[in-house]
Amino acid sequence: MYTESLVKFGKVRSEIRDLFEYGMKRKAEIGEENVYDFSIGNPSVPTPQCVNDAIKELVDTSDSISLHGYTSAQGDAMVRKTMADHLNKKYGAKVSADNIYMTCGAAAALSIVMNACMQPGDECLVIKPYFPEYGVYIERSGAKVVEVDPEDKSLQIDIENVDKAINEKTKAIVINSPNNPSGVVYKKDKVEALCEILKKKEEEYGHPIFIITDEPYRELIYDDIELPYLINYYDNTFSCYSYSKALSMPGERIGYVVVSPKIANYEDAYAAVCGSGRALGYVCAPSLWQKVVAKCVDATADISIYKKNRDLFYNSLTEMGFECVYPDGAFYLFVKAMGEDSRAFSAKCKEHEILVVPADSFGMPGYVRVSYCVETKQIEDALPAFKAVAEEYK
Amino acid sequence: MYTESLVKFGKVRSEIRDLFEYGMKRKAEIGEENVYDFSIGNPSVPTPQCVNDAIKELVDTSDSISLHGYTSAQGDAMVRKTMADHLNKKYGAKVSADNIYMTCGAAAALSIVMNACMQPGDECLVIKPYFPEYGVYIERSGAKVVEVDPEDKSLQIDIENVDKAINEKTKAIVINSPNNPSGVVYKKDKVEALCEILKKKEEEYGHPIFIITDEPYRELIYDDIELPYLINYYDNTFSCYSYSKALSMPGERIGYVVVSPKIANYEDAYAAVCGSGRALGYVCAPSLWQKVVAKCVDATADISIYKKNRDLFYNSLTEMGFECVYPDGAFYLFVKAMGEDSRAFSAKCKEHEILVVPADSFGMPGYVRVSYCVETKQIEDALPAFKAVAEEYK
Repeated sequence: MYTESLVKFGKVRSEIRDLFEYGMKRKAEIGEENVYDFSIGNPSVPTPQCVNDAIKELVDTSDSISLHGYTSAQGDAMVRKTMADHLNKKYGAKVSADNIYMTCGAAAALSIVMNACMQPGDECLVIKPYFPEYGVYIERSGAKVVEVDPEDKSLQIDIENVDKAINEKTKAIVINSPNNPSGVVYKKDKVEALCEILKKKEEEYGHPIFIITDEPYRELIYDDIELPYLINYYDNTFSCYSYSKALSMPGERIGYVVVSPKIANYEDAYAAVCGSGRALGYVCAPSLWQKVVAKCVDATADISIYKKNRDLFYNSLTEMGFECVYPDGAFYLFVKAMGEDSRAFSAKCKEHEILVVPADSFGMPGYVRVSYCVETKQIEDALPAFKAVAEEYK
Repeated sequence: MYTESLVKFGKVRSEIRDLFEYGMKRKAEIGEENVYDFSIGNPSVPTPQCVNDAIKELVDTSDSISLHGYTSAQGDAMVRKTMADHLNKKYGAKVSADNIYMTCGAAAALSIVMNACMQPGDECLVIKPYFPEYGVYIERSGAKVVEVDPEDKSLQIDIENVDKAINEKTKAIVINSPNNPSGVVYKKDKVEALCEILKKKEEEYGHPIFIITDEPYRELIYDDIELPYLINYYDNTFSCYSYSKALSMPGERIGYVVVSPKIANYEDAYAAVCGSGRALGYVCAPSLWQKVVAKCVDATADISIYKKNRDLFYNSLTEMGFECVYPDGAFYLFVKAMGEDSRAFSAKCKEHEILVVPADSFGMPGYVRVSYCVETKQIEDALPAFKAVAEEYK
């Protein structure tokens, strides 16, 4: 009667959501300060002042019909030019307004791109660990998810594993760096090796293999490391961006796709993105938000708190004997579950009022995701509880 | 390489857009006041003051993390309650917050619902004339569009034609009242007869036949007539609403789906809507806009201008000998093309600097759509040109 796969997507409860709701209940029982909730990846620092200033300025000075009216389907032309100029300045990308398609956030961007370039029979590689929604979008496009193991411990891209996973059905690979849930930033040499292998396979099979990037954590990098901007490395790239994390406004749903100007059959590629957005019901990205992000294009929320949290958390847990993946970016610490079973470990943490997410749904059983987009005090307060957990496993 | 149907949707230029762009060029050549552009259905009255007031109040008084953060996927609970209360007060509907799913406008609502309840092999009825995007969403869901002729001249639902069009594959019918492009409001007795026929066919074929409403023009009714609220008439109804027209903010993309509490297998129906929104990449409707429309739930833009325009335009054109469908709502006048060929008629109008859209893409060749969401002066100025067109056909 209803579309079975969609009923399933609507009913499956996520472990993250379940933990979060347990946390709400538990906080009501024993007090908020006594529950150490590291379950949810919501930005915890306010939007920068420029966001609210831009909103008010636009409302006070714009004609309401043009401010709140339709933009063109691909986004306001001036907004797209601002995005392109920003990318050219920041990454030396050579893109123009015509390569940009504004979207309702990165989720919309990914769904639009995946439907635009994949059909039933195609395969799409994802590198573990990966955000489970990729599977939902890929499945809806009709393609099949193929999981690829990363390098042991570092969780960098394992080039040999990618090589082995590609076959003639491979249409695309999703690259998410900094990574949710591991915080890992893929290094330049790994990215270069990946692009080389993909180019070789494209020649072998005689069709493009697209890189689809998911870059919401692009601005959240804490050390002096270079983030390779994929469009500069590989022609057949669709890049998906969101302001959710950079400007701490995930509910507002604003981001964009960049279609590489060098992608195969460019005109068809961009038309497929436009047609996909249209067919999925997007019309245009929210008009006010397009104009706000154009005004705040160089701003980010105060991410120094995340860096402070990362350093404190990583150093403290490592010292206690936890095996943690070193996160260069995002706001997640990926911790090996003591005792190997991540669900049992998460349950043990719960006994100590610590909420952490088993990484099974990210394709990596044996790990938990610890979100450190929280107040630093929560981490400080939680450390004795983590110590107690570690003691129990000794 | 790319999804063929989506490349097509991205490349097909709409006649409306083409005319609009011609208009822009022509205005630059001969002066804005000398081109009578009735091509585009963009609201021409400002958003009511309460919208901008609500935005500023929310920005000034809310915590930014909760204002701009994720809401639950189906929408903020308080916002959904406000929507339900409003519908119960206005239409005596018996719906609750749990029946509401907030969306990025009516287009998203329609796309989400159509994917939720239709699969390849299904058929979906649309009553002519109809908004061409329905065809795009229906096709993407895998179902087939079946066009149904309306009653002659009145363009009301022709019950006999609906009866004939239904077969065992029929899964849904789209009802858009007030109608784009005709402005017709379907009368209560027609709606009742439609529901009766659908119930009979549901029994005959042993499965639900859903009504999917598209209600962006619901608030734009100019006479003292009753708009039947479909959920009160028919159990298997998904109702799709948008604030685009009522609050003059089509670019902001905010609206909702109501899943009738009496729909077949309610739990699955609502889950399918949630799962469909998730799989299409929606995450949640823009957070700020959810809260703004909740604050402006009883407001509308000043629609008295549209009524004035309708009266002037309908009366003047009828007097000149044009055959017009009387529009009870929306902001379109549907005019029979003199000489029968709507494209030739539109071209003739163009010679007189009048831009009107041939209704071929709405499934009704032989008519043109004349948008009267313009300043009244433009209509007054255009009347001599319309008279000249009529003279040429005499």
